[in-house]
This record gives sequence, C-alpha cells and structure tokens, in this order.
Amino acid sequence: MAGSILGTIFRISTWGESHGAGVGVVVDGCPAGLELCEEEIQVYLDRRKPGQSKFATPRKEEDLVEILSGVFEGKTTGAPISMLVHNRTQRSKDYSEIAQYYRPGHADFTFDKKYGFRDYRGGGRSSGRETIARVAAGAVAQKLLKSLGICVTAYTKAIGQIEIDREQFQIEEREKNPVCMPDAQAAKQAAAFLEECMQRQDSAGGVIECVIQGVPAGIGDPVFEKLDANLAKAVLSIGAVKGFEIGDGFAAARRVGSENNDAFCIQNGKIGKATNHAGGVLGGISDGSEIVFRAAVKPTPSIAREQRTVNRKGEEIAVCIKGRHDPIIVPRAVVVVESMAAITLVDTLLVGMTSRLDWIQRFFRA
Amino acid sequence: MAGSILGTIFRISTWGESHGAGVGVVVDGCPAGLELCEEEIQVYLDRRKPGQSKFATPRKEEDLVEILSGVFEGKTTGAPISMLVHNRTQRSKDYSEIAQYYRPGHADFTFDKKYGFRDYRGGGRSSGRETIARVAAGAVAQKLLKSLGICVTAYTKAIGQIEIDREQFQIEEREKNPVCMPDAQAAKQAAAFLEECMQRQDSAGGVIECVIQGVPAGIGDPVFEKLDANLAKAVLSIGAVKGFEIGDGFAAARRVGSENNDAFCIQNGKIGKATNHAGGVLGGISDGSEIVFRAAVKPTPSIAREQRTVNRKGEEIAVCIKGRHDPIIVPRAVVVVESMAAITLVDTLLVGMTSRLDWIQRFFRA
Amino acid sequence: MAGSILGTIFRISTWGESHGAGVGVVVDGCPAGLELCEEEIQVYLDRRKPGQSKFATPRKEEDLVEILSGVFEGKTTGAPISMLVHNRTQRSKDYSEIAQYYRPGHADFTFDKKYGFRDYRGGGRSSGRETIARVAAGAVAQKLLKSLGICVTAYTKAIGQIEIDREQFQIEEREKNPVCMPDAQAAKQAAAFLEECMQRQDSAGGVIECVIQGVPAGIGDPVFEKLDANLAKAVLSIGAVKGFEIGDGFAAARRVGSENNDAFCIQNGKIGKATNHAGGVLGGISDGSEIVFRAAVKPTPSIAREQRTVNRKGEEIAVCIKGRHDPIIVPRAVVVVESMAAITLVDTLLVGMTSRLDWIQRFFRA
Amino acid sequence: MAGSILGTIFRISTWGESHGAGVGVVVDGCPAGLELCEEEIQVYLDRRKPGQSKFATPRKEEDLVEILSGVFEGKTTGAPISMLVHNRTQRSKDYSEIAQYYRPGHADFTFDKKYGFRDYRGGGRSSGRETIARVAAGAVAQKLLKSLGICVTAYTKAIGQIEIDREQFQIEEREKNPVCMPDAQAAKQAAAFLEECMQRQDSAGGVIECVIQGVPAGIGDPVFEKLDANLAKAVLSIGAVKGFEIGDGFAAARRVGSENNDAFCIQNGKIGKATNHAGGVLGGISDGSEIVFRAAVKPTPSIAREQRTVNRKGEEIAVCIKGRHDPIIVPRAVVVVESMAAITLVDTLLVGMTSRLDWIQRFFRA
Repeated sequence: MAGSILGTIFRISTWGESHGAGVGVVVDGCPAGLELCEEEIQVYLDRRKPGQSKFATPRKEEDLVEILSGVFEGKTTGAPISMLVHNRTQRSKDYSEIAQYYRPGHADFTFDKKYGFRDYRGGGRSSGRETIARVAAGAVAQKLLKSLGICVTAYTKAIGQIEIDREQFQIEEREKNPVCMPDAQAAKQAAAFLEECMQRQDSAGGVIECVIQGVPAGIGDPVFEKLDANLAKAVLSIGAVKGFEIGDGFAAARRVGSENNDAFCIQNGKIGKATNHAGGVLGGISDGSEIVFRAAVKPTPSIAREQRTVNRKGEEIAVCIKGRHDPIIVPRAVVVVESMAAITLVDTLLVGMTSRLDWIQRFFRA
Repeated sequence: MAGSILGTIFRISTWGESHGAGVGVVVDGCPAGLELCEEEIQVYLDRRKPGQSKFATPRKEEDLVEILSGVFEGKTTGAPISMLVHNRTQRSKDYSEIAQYYRPGHADFTFDKKYGFRDYRGGGRSSGRETIARVAAGAVAQKLLKSLGICVTAYTKAIGQIEIDREQFQIEEREKNPVCMPDAQAAKQAAAFLEECMQRQDSAGGVIECVIQGVPAGIGDPVFEKLDANLAKAVLSIGAVKGFEIGDGFAAARRVGSENNDAFCIQNGKIGKATNHAGGVLGGISDGSEIVFRAAVKPTPSIAREQRTVNRKGEEIAVCIKGRHDPIIVPRAVVVVESMAAITLVDTLLVGMTSRLDWIQRFFRA
Repeated sequence: MAGSILGTIFRISTWGESHGAGVGVVVDGCPAGLELCEEEIQVYLDRRKPGQSKFATPRKEEDLVEILSGVFEGKTTGAPISMLVHNRTQRSKDYSEIAQYYRPGHADFTFDKKYGFRDYRGGGRSSGRETIARVAAGAVAQKLLKSLGICVTAYTKAIGQIEIDREQFQIEEREKNPVCMPDAQAAKQAAAFLEECMQRQDSAGGVIECVIQGVPAGIGDPVFEKLDANLAKAVLSIGAVKGFEIGDGFAAARRVGSENNDAFCIQNGKIGKATNHAGGVLGGISDGSEIVFRAAVKPTPSIAREQRTVNRKGEEIAVCIKGRHDPIIVPRAVVVVESMAAITLVDTLLVGMTSRLDWIQRFFRA
Repeated sequence: MAGSILGTIFRISTWGESHGAGVGVVVDGCPAGLELCEEEIQVYLDRRKPGQSKFATPRKEEDLVEILSGVFEGKTTGAPISMLVHNRTQRSKDYSEIAQYYRPGHADFTFDKKYGFRDYRGGGRSSGRETIARVAAGAVAQKLLKSLGICVTAYTKAIGQIEIDREQFQIEEREKNPVCMPDAQAAKQAAAFLEECMQRQDSAGGVIECVIQGVPAGIGDPVFEKLDANLAKAVLSIGAVKGFEIGDGFAAARRVGSENNDAFCIQNGKIGKATNHAGGVLGGISDGSEIVFRAAVKPTPSIAREQRTVNRKGEEIAVCIKGRHDPIIVPRAVVVVESMAAITLVDTLLVGMTSRLDWIQRFFRA
C-alpha cells in the first residue's frame, strides 16, 4: 500500500532498501524560493552517519546526498526535490543464514506474512538506512522553518535508567559526547553503561526529547489533525519508537487538574503561560509556548547473545545475530526525530495558512 | 483546514459543536453487506453518555442516534452512512462570562489565535461532545471487526496513582463500577480518590489500556503508515490524551535488548511469540499477538477551584469554572479509545488487502 | 470505497439516497469568517429544484436546506459545515418492478456487480438527488469566491443540435427561459425540440458551458493537479456528463499551432492574451484570462418508450420506464456544473497560497 | 503544492526537469510478487522516445531506465519502486533568449506568476520529458493489468482533419507508420499533411483514442471517484490535452435517449450490452464492455513561424521559436495516454477490492 508517502501539502515520498542501489526521497510541495544546496542537507545526514563513535556500528557509509531536481540557480523552484544517496557498501555478504529464520524484535516475520516473501539482505525496507530519506527531507523542512524563525532541537534524554539532569542542561554538550546528551555528567554514566551492555553482547534503549521554539500560537487543527497527533504519528513511524508523549505526557495522568492546568498570564505584553505542562499544544493547536515531546526508543533488537527463535521450516532454534550493529539506536535517531518533527510542522504550517477568510482575502488582493 | 476527516478507504467525516443543532458523522467506504441498525450503535453511545455515575457530569443527554443514509433493508449498501445525534440540552445559558476569558487547559485561546474568533458556547468544536461522532463511527467499525473475529477492548488502567492489579484482572468487572476498571479492588480505591478530588474542587487524570484480539499477522505498513503510528495519531487526536505507548512503551526504553526482544516459538503448530513486549506490532505490521497500547489522559481542565488566567482585554484575572463537569474524563473516554482503535484498524485491514499480487489475481478471477 | 469525499483543503463529504431520510454534505476546511446563511444556499438549490418548468419532472420537492454546524453568529467558524436536506416526497411507491430488471443507461446493473445488491428505490446513491449535496457545498464555495472577486457562471450552450448564437448572447436571458439558454431565439427552438422529444416519449442531451471570471494568473499546478484536470474530474463526476473540454477543446485538435497559440500582449498595462483558445489555463495554471470549459450531457436515460433489457433472472425483456422524469437533464444541471467548478476552484486557490516562500514568510511575520 | 503525486493505493510520485540531472518516478503501493525488469519498462519508454521519425524532434535521447528499489530477485517486494532516467543531452545551450520572453502556448508566463521565477532551460517541469516518469510508472501498471487479463491500447484517431476509417482499422498498422494510426491509408494522408505543416513552419494537433479490454463489471465508484472522472483527470493532466470524452462523448449530447441508451442483452450466457454508446461505464462503474475514451491534443505550441508575444520587461515583441520541436505531439503521446489510463485503472481496481463484506471476510479467512 501507499505507505511511503507522508503529508498533505509538503509531501515526502521515500524509497530504498539497505542493500539495493540506494535510498532516496522526493519532496513535493516545497515552496519556491528557498535557498538550498547539497552541503546543507549533508550536515544533517552526517549526524546520523554510522562509524562515528564506539557506540555506533563501525560500518563505513559515506551517505553523500545528490539533489537531482527541484533546485535551480541555488533556489527551490516549487518542483519536486528528488534526493538520492547511493548505497556504497553493499558488500556481497552471505545472507543465506538470516534468510532462513526470523530475527527476534525485527520485522522479518511480519514482512513474510504481509508480502509473502521478503528482501532478506539486511533489513530491506525496514532497515535503519530508510531513515536517510527522512533526514534528507527533514533538512529541507528545517531550512524552511529557520527562515520563519522556528528551531527544532532534539537530544538524548535518557539511556537505560540514566537520565539527564535539568540543572546540568547545556545544549552545546550534545555535540561533544557520543550519546548526544546535553549533560556531560549523564553522558559519562551512559557511556559506561553502554560499555557494559556491549561486553554482555546486549543492547540498550532510551528516550529522545525534542523542543520546538518559535512556533506562533494558532498552528494545528482541532480534530483529527491535531498537531500533537500528527507529531505522534510521525515519530512512531520511526522504527524502534514505542511511545510518544507531549508535555508532561504520562506524568499528567497522575496529577490533579489544579497542578496540571497552565495558568495564562501576560508576558512581555503578550498572552503567555506561567507553566508549560501542556507542552505547547492546547486542543491540538499550538499555544505559543515551546513544543516539547518525547519518544521512547527500544533497545537495538540485533544482539550477539544467543536468542531463541523459529526458522522458515517452523523449527525452534537458537541464534546469535552476527554483524556490525549499534548497541543503541538513540544517539543516531536524535536527528531522525528532529527531521520527522520538522516535516510534520512544515506541513501543518502550510495547511494553516488557509484558516481565515481575512488572510485569504489579503493574500489574493496582494 | 480539512481536519475533521480521517482514513484512506474507510473514511469518517465528523461535524458538530456542543451547542449547535447536533453532532454527526459520515462514514464513507464502509463495505456493502454489513448488517447494521441504530440499536447497535446506541449501545456504544450509551457507554459514553454522561449522567451515569457520580463521577460523570449530571447533565442529561439522551444522545439518540439516527441513521440517515447508507443502510437499506438492514444492511449497509456501500454508500456513505450518515449518522446524526441531536443536541437536546442546549439550554440558553449565559456564556457571556466564559466568552470573555481563556479557560486554562482549554482550547479557547488557541481557537481565537487560529480562527480569529470562536464559538464560545461551551467548548464548541473542541467539546467532549465531538467524541459522539467518533463513537458512532467506531460502532460501525467494531461491527465490521467482529464479523472478522476481531475484538477491541479498552478499560481504565489507572486513575491518578491507583493502578489495576494484573492478578485481579476481570474484564466483566469493567461494567460494574463507575470508573471502568477491570479490578474491583482498584476501582474502590479510585472511587475514594475521586471523591476526594471532588471535595477539593479538583479533577484527576488516568491511563486507558486497549487490547485488540484476533488481528492476523501481516496487517499494517512498514514506513509511515505503521499500524502503531496510526493508532497513536488516532488516539492522540482525542482531546485530553497526552501520551501513547505500544507494548511496553516507555518501559522498553529502560530495558536491554535481551529482555525486550520477544522470542519466536511454535504455539499450536503456528509461529507465535513467547512474550509480547512489542505489543503485537513489529516494524509497523501486526505479528499475530494481541495488540496492546495505552493512552495517558490529563485531568479534566474545567475545575471549580480558583485559577489564574487572562481575559480578552489582556488583563490577568482569577476565575472559577462553573457548570457541570466530569471530575475525570477517563471512564467515559474508554469507549472513545476503543472507537478510534477500531476505526484505524478497519482502514488498515482494507488497505492491506492489496499487498500481494496473488491475492489480487485470486480476487479478480473469482 | 471512500468515493464520496472530494478535495485537499476545502473538502466535501456527501451522503444520501433518493429515497432515504435525506441528502446532505459536510464541508470541511471552509475558512473562518465567511458570512453565511441558509437563504443564500437556498438560492442555488432552488435553481436545481424540479417542477419549475414543463421540461423538468413535475415532482414536488421543496429541498429546504438546514445548516447544522460550522456557523456561529452568522459567520463560518472554521469547523465543518454540515448541511441537510430532508427527502419530503418518499412516497411509498411500488418499486418491485424496477427492482427486477436493469434500466438501460442507468447504474442498476453496475451497482449490483459492485456491491452485490442495490437500494432499488429510484436511483439510490446515483439518483439526481445526490447533486443537491454538491449544490449546497457549491453555494458555500461560490460565496467564498465572490468575496475574492471571482464569478462562476454556467448556462446551456446546446440542446440536441440547437446551439446558442454568440452574437445573441445575453446572460440575463438564462433566467428567463426554461432551458437556461442565454439566447432567447435558441431557447425557443430548443423548447420546440423538447416538446417533440416528449411527444415521442424520448429525451434529449446537450452541452453546458461554464465561464469563470476574476481568477488571477498563477492558480493551479503543473503536473497531476492541473486546474483543468481537476475541473474535468469534478465535472465528469456529475452523473450523465460524458465529455469535458477546456478552451477550444476538441476543435483545437483540428487546428494548426499558428491558429491555436494565443499571443501575449499588453492590456491595460498588464500582460494579457490577444485571444483565448487555451480557455484561461496554460500548463495547468490559470493565465489570468477567463476560464472557459464545456460539459457534454447525455440524454436522460429514463424514457417511456419501450426498450430492451435484461432482468435479474437473466431473461431478455421489453420495458417502459414509468414515472416523472425530466425529458432533459441539462437545464437543472447548469447549477451543478457551476457548483463543481466553484468547489474545485476554492480548493485550488487555498492550496495555491503555499507556493512561494516569500508569501509564507510575509504571512507568518504578519 | 503536492501536485506531483497521484493515486490512493497505487501511488506515483514523479520528479525531474528537462534540463536537470534526470527524471524519475517512485511507484508506491505496487503489490508484491509482480515479475518486473528494466527491459519491460524500456519497451514503453522507447515508444515515446524522440528521434524515431521525421515527425518527431531529431534530438537524440536514449532514455534508459534504471530500477533503483522495490524489486528483488526479479519480483516486486511491495516496497516503493524508484525508477530513474538520466538526462543525457543537456547541451550547454544558450537559454538567455527564451528566459527573457513568454512563449505563446507555453507555461512560461504562468510559472512566473505562480512561483515568482522559473527554470527557463527548456520547459523545466512542464517539459514533455516529464512524461517519461508517467510512462515508466505506466509500464508497471500495464504489467500488473496484463496479469489480470486487462489490456490498454491507444492509437492516433485523428490528425488535423484526417480521421481513421473504422472499416480500415488494423491495430498492427499502428506500429508501422510514424503517426501511430491503425489505418494505413489515413496514416499516409496524415503524413502528407504534417509535411505541409512543417514546410509552413507550423504544427498540428489531433485526437488519441484508448480502448481498455478485459475490465470486469463493477470497477469504479459512483460519486466523485467515478472511473471516467478519474480517467479524465489523468488524461487532462498530460500537457497539451484539451478535451476528454468517454464513449460517444460530445456526440451523445446531440442524440435522443432512445438512440443513446445501450440495451442490456444476454451474450454468451452473461449480461452484456447490444451497443456501447456509454463507453463501458455506467454511473461511474465499469459495465463489462470495452472502455473507450478519447483525448484532444492541441498542436505543438513551439513553432518556427513568427509570433507576437511579450517579454519580461513588458514589451510587445515578435519571436520565432528555434530548436528541434516535434511538429505534432500526438504520436509520441499515445503511450502516455495508455500509461495514465493504466495507472488510473490499477488504482481503481485495488480500491475496488474493499467494496463488499463477503469478499473481505473470504479474504481474511483465507
């Protein structure tokens, strides 16, 4: 089914498998006049590139992006922007083993059930390489948002049981440690924990937090297209994400109303909120505060420890997944979460331009 | 914007405000041949009806549904099913007060920002009455699912800090207590806690859990239209829901891979899983296990306690929200969560019929 | 399938059968702030109402519209606008006869094939009454277009072999004759021809022309969402329409390029075109000229003359369709064509607001 | 805007400009299990390739297609199929002249109005090369249709005033003459007429007819998604198409009902129709007869004769369009019409699988 296309006005269409010719995305509906070049997109792709730390797979993937259409003389033309990243390291590995059984925590079994067979070389369409296309499209969305004064920033909030400390929060720290945490101390603890996981041939999960600054009040829709609902879908569509919460999320469920309601107040002469338990969204529409959400990411399912599973003949067997796998998905997924948030927000902003007759009249009379 | 329509093949289009003529829904894309009558839909609507317990608003709303189209001689015809519930109790109350200020935790402010003004009688389009349309459509979806052997069941998992005990779980208990909990003991404690909240003129939040049984493996899509991503969107589109998790959700983020992976095994001669941390979805596609997800619901924002806010003139003021409000949203929202899950699942099932050429060939040769 | 919903931002969802409780439409995505009342919509519905001339069915249908939602204090709120027209004259007629055979030129046979059975009372969902919903939605679209200085006008161009004469064109004449022709002389001839058809128990077809004035250049999209492509779909989705052409249409196919190209020129200090063979659209985008298109409408399939057909038992039989049928569809379909054009154009205009970054920046900085 | 994506289940997303790196398409929603290779797609691309006759531009374009994803071991996997054709002959021509003025009959002016500027090298996104992507996607659709016993065939019906003679119709003849006419005699006359046009530095238009065989009755939807409405949109979305008619089309508008209705009858033990004025569609749903439609194609707008136009400074000027242009678009557009019909039909077929509960039940119980 048409499951690789997302969006209403700003629409992305992704394609590609881990071991095919490459992965790519077509961004349709990007407005004309946005300055854009390959280097700007590459910056984002480099953030998800493997081989950058000991907690990421040592596979070498250059992941260089090419823009094939939609940009002329340095600016978007309004035509679809096609971007392509070749798969350079499809080494002629022997996949005959994993073709024969279902890896626990992977989509091998469900693909077979859905499609009757599967591309068994690596994860095929459900490989982590699929997120390259999301990040390339996200880079375009981020550029557009920046031109409107909107900034999307994600980081690792927790790895295993280790959480960042709000008091120690320094966003610059995020770039300085391999776990993408904005807290040097927590990052060190997390690194130690990951070392331990690796020694036990195991993997870890964690939580990614994303903050969006600069969104004006009034963006999003009140019923099915709530801004938070669309953010949830976009973020849960990333492989390995198992939960989403906006603002205080699950903690709000344990509070009483008088604690959870955010009082409106006057801030710098404008209507603001004294607190932000809501996470910047009321009734599905942005309220002008920071938008804050979190994604729960499961531990990497590929582990070298022995596991029980079933092969295609229907026999129960024990397996050890070989190969170069990230002991944790979280740090490399941070930019993917940012990307999905940016893509969702651009679409919501564009759709939102049509909400009021007076705006429309001003537009067509201009 | 077109935010009141949901779905690809099984599409619902809802309308109506709390204080207009009524609320309704058009279900387009329901297959022909489903037996359907108003009584069956009424059963679901009655579950969300107010005035049924001391923890629900004492407002009297009959909420009787009429089917206006799409059913002929007791069966759906394939044409859109239009369902209407009149608003019977639009009493000519004085709304001039709440028209003047922004209720904390409500969408009054964001509606004004988005649309330039708002229907200030009650919540307008973001009133809880909007969910009537979801439940009516959900009833149709549930009927269809039942005919395929699929059963969607939700219940209250937690209210405030009080959680049900897995050992005490009895689904029949859900109907017997006003908090919709499948655990008599926890229900009593929750009731006591709610009494307390009411005395303090406060409100409470909670968690709803939903279990879907009978979904065959292979349903859902691997990229943006992951089954769990669409469930997340559907559930977060319900007002007051602030979080969503599938399977172990946020707890999975704290685990290691060897704990979190579900081993495949042979059960009754078929491939199954020894555990279900994944919640029945792998790579966005159902794996044949029970689908299990949870929704975090915030405390009712309308509370009688004094709160700080701002009026339309931009003055900071203190307010007490009057009127008949539920001290908790959770029990009445249980059927809404079921409805959104059922609607999402039907659409996913129908789209999934087109995944394989051999199925298509068999279909067109039949 | 979800075939009763149309549009991307301005979306309409129609429902209802000829012999059910009523017909209606939900307009989702109408911008907030448009003044709207039932009387304005009624004006359009009255133009398609039967029983107004001897060339229309003498059935009495009041077709009074009710607005059930989306309008507050005389203005649209941005919420879905639900409109309902009750079916008043569902007389308990005996349909057992037409339930047994397939009327030539009707959708009885194809409905049975698609859905397995059909609502055999009248045309069910493919009855002409389905167009009531289109006209109600079209009235909203027309109101919105007028507020932007855009005017959509359709009229009968031809009935059978009789065509209007461009030299005699007077748009006011359209209201003065029962065939909706803007040429008094041609209208008389057409009336005489229709009398003849009726005497022979036969029916006639014709051509509707539609002119849209005031559309600025730059509206529409260059690939699949060409303005003319969407107009074609909208117009061909009206039952009985068998052809669509924009500008010179099929005549252009017989011309050479030097005749068919429209020279650009300067008109009143702006870029215009010396001729308008293109019909106001170049490359799918409006060029600032009048948009002109035509729809071919087949003769009413219900005729009293004896016809050959097949019954559900698979026997060849002869039938005479009884009942009160229009001898021609064209005059009553004029307002339906206008409606579909208006609905399509509003959606195209709203989507078009997002084409350029500079516009978007100006919007969000305002 | 998102105007380069088409379809509901079988969705295509096209990209590319005449003078960029290439053109391509992503086909999302193609069922798994279809045998597919580049050679099969190339056959269709070769039919639209230029340089094949004296009536086509002598430009050399190899237009070799590469499949980048979605096919594994010779079969589609259900994942998006990305196809790419590099632009090999982007010779570094001087476009500074056509950048300065608006070519009559082209989209230069409307692009400038819509996007603020344009890619002025050739037609950019509205170049004829854009149709490569349609043909590549169409080839996939055709392969799928063939596996279901459905055959889509188009040919030139008329060039200028010269029409094929039904008595002389031989489909094999289509491949044997440069004008793609299935009538040797008419083809000769058309060739002579085109020679004449070329001598006068002029161009010609024509009509393409398309016949679809093997579509079972019951495909398509009764309201907005009528099969003929979607065919009309798909065909009018091809640049240069100015009209569409199904069955007798505009001729039906001149007939009376008794002539135009097709009598149902028994043919080979099944219900069929004695005639096919309807063109195989009743009420938007296929009736089991051949589906027959026509498209009117305007003369190539690029002609060497002097024409009047306006430059970007707003001065009226005279221009002669230089370069290698087809004197007629029709013969090369035949395969494009087939492609758009095939793409539309596949989507309609897949959506149609969900119409009946009994089919769905059989599917999920299998």
